[in-house]
Amino acid sequence: MTRVAREPAGAAAGYEDGAAWVDGEIVPVADAKISILDTGFSRSDVTYDVVGVWGGAFFRLDEHLERFERSCRELRLDPGLDREAMADILFALVRRSGLRDAYVETLCTRGASRRGVRDPRTFENRFFAYAIPYVWLLRPEDPDAGMDAVIARSVYRIPEQSVDPKVKNFHWGDLTRALYEAYDRGGHYPVLLDADGNVTEGAGYNVFALIGGRLLTPAHGTLRGITQRTVLELAAAEGVPAETTVIPEATFRAGEELFATTTAGGVMPITSLDGEPVGDGRPGPLTRRLRDLYWAAHEDPRYARPVDYGA
Amino acid sequence: MTRVAREPAGAAAGYEDGAAWVDGEIVPVADAKISILDTGFSRSDVTYDVVGVWGGAFFRLDEHLERFERSCRELRLDPGLDREAMADILFALVRRSGLRDAYVETLCTRGASRRGVRDPRTFENRFFAYAIPYVWLLRPEDPDAGMDAVIARSVYRIPEQSVDPKVKNFHWGDLTRALYEAYDRGGHYPVLLDADGNVTEGAGYNVFALIGGRLLTPAHGTLRGITQRTVLELAAAEGVPAETTVIPEATFRAGEELFATTTAGGVMPITSLDGEPVGDGRPGPLTRRLRDLYWAAHEDPRYARPVDYGA
Repeated sequence: MTRVAREPAGAAAGYEDGAAWVDGEIVPVADAKISILDTGFSRSDVTYDVVGVWGGAFFRLDEHLERFERSCRELRLDPGLDREAMADILFALVRRSGLRDAYVETLCTRGASRRGVRDPRTFENRFFAYAIPYVWLLRPEDPDAGMDAVIARSVYRIPEQSVDPKVKNFHWGDLTRALYEAYDRGGHYPVLLDADGNVTEGAGYNVFALIGGRLLTPAHGTLRGITQRTVLELAAAEGVPAETTVIPEATFRAGEELFATTTAGGVMPITSLDGEPVGDGRPGPLTRRLRDLYWAAHEDPRYARPVDYGA
Repeated sequence: MTRVAREPAGAAAGYEDGAAWVDGEIVPVADAKISILDTGFSRSDVTYDVVGVWGGAFFRLDEHLERFERSCRELRLDPGLDREAMADILFALVRRSGLRDAYVETLCTRGASRRGVRDPRTFENRFFAYAIPYVWLLRPEDPDAGMDAVIARSVYRIPEQSVDPKVKNFHWGDLTRALYEAYDRGGHYPVLLDADGNVTEGAGYNVFALIGGRLLTPAHGTLRGITQRTVLELAAAEGVPAETTVIPEATFRAGEELFATTTAGGVMPITSLDGEPVGDGRPGPLTRRLRDLYWAAHEDPRYARPVDYGA
């Protein structure tokens, strides 16, 4: 069963909407701002990561921070903090916000040119973080609700040879175009192909298809999602053969079950594709099973790092 | 002759580094900030334009604003101001900064999600602008200086089918990757190919090649630069055949002269390519002629809109 986010318990005054780390101090998230001259904005020269807090505990925090550090290295960005220092900041932000269920983001930007020197190797990189109420890509109130997905026709995913999707980035122009196309075509959740017509990912989520008893997820043109990884592990533990592979559009369309995964919502059933029902138009049995296992894993001490909210 | 930027004449106190328009008022550029929750940052869901002020006059302001409005329409962004209202703001910013030679940017961001509603069609779009001292991509002190260009090998330009380069955008991940590759290979100015091996553009500049007496500039995978357009017009007026076409890498490499164009620097000679001199390694005669004509055009009343700096 999908769980509904609970009320925050005891935000510090002014922090009801969340808390952010800016220039070495904690501020209300509404005050978290970046200079319009920072190339993190003006060249989208930035990487980030998002980790969930569920029931008062971070889920797979180390893996998120490890991926964040790897993304920084790939872009030659230095957040100036080691992993435990970053973790300390994130715990402090969640404590300040009082949130039991939170969406927690870390960011590192390249910084701004100073005195006309435009060589980005000379810029001072900047670390930011914030914790806000948990974000649901698909509202969870109705467990039978699903995503109305649309395979984008007007745009294809930015290729890996241009921008590496494994380095989490804000280059969402293709995803935003696909989002508007989905709206125009009566859906809400785009799925993008690559130039060869293979499925990549959606606007902030990985996708899976159950084909002839095998669970498939795209190998290329996508972020290696931590929710995606969790689902692959859970499927393996259930004895469901699962693999990361090339998925042509036609194969995806033939999926007996389809679902999407993201930190902002977990395992989300895709119940229609281009207006046609997937299966009987309700979340399939494997999707439901994996969704339950996913939320149960949040209580697994191997994955959960509890927040101490104090008195 | 390339002209060197003059001293600002009479900035208002606090505005020596430039002036910005944020939330309906003019602030020092150091105070121009955007929320880290604005999708203009967090999804690079933003467009912009840059217009130069030279010798106290805007250069081709209407064409820059027209392109900005077109970019907004393409992305379904609404800056909430008509062209003359935007122009009034830009004039006010330049006046406040006192700058005679300025780099003036307009921006429109999608805005932020409110109360958990993630549909970008519901967001309040935001208009920003700023004027800062003129930015030189290539320092102009030495008229014989040129760009040491490098054709990127590790990355290709984001294709038009993913992100439209004619809509001026901050999706610079490919350009930044190419910039770092250029540094690693001993140059400073990358030129990117597309997936088919044709030349597109550089990190913020269009490129030109003189081939057998014809001036060529890429037709695809690039911004339609206003400096580029100006050069095409100036070449035509000089009787030099010029065209926008497909330029394979080998053709570009055979250029008798190569140069780059951008608002932040005008016409900039490329004097070496992958470490080899272009021609005799000095700016070629057509490049120099076009550079002179380009700066002379800044005094042409068809293009120049003077700023009234007041008493």
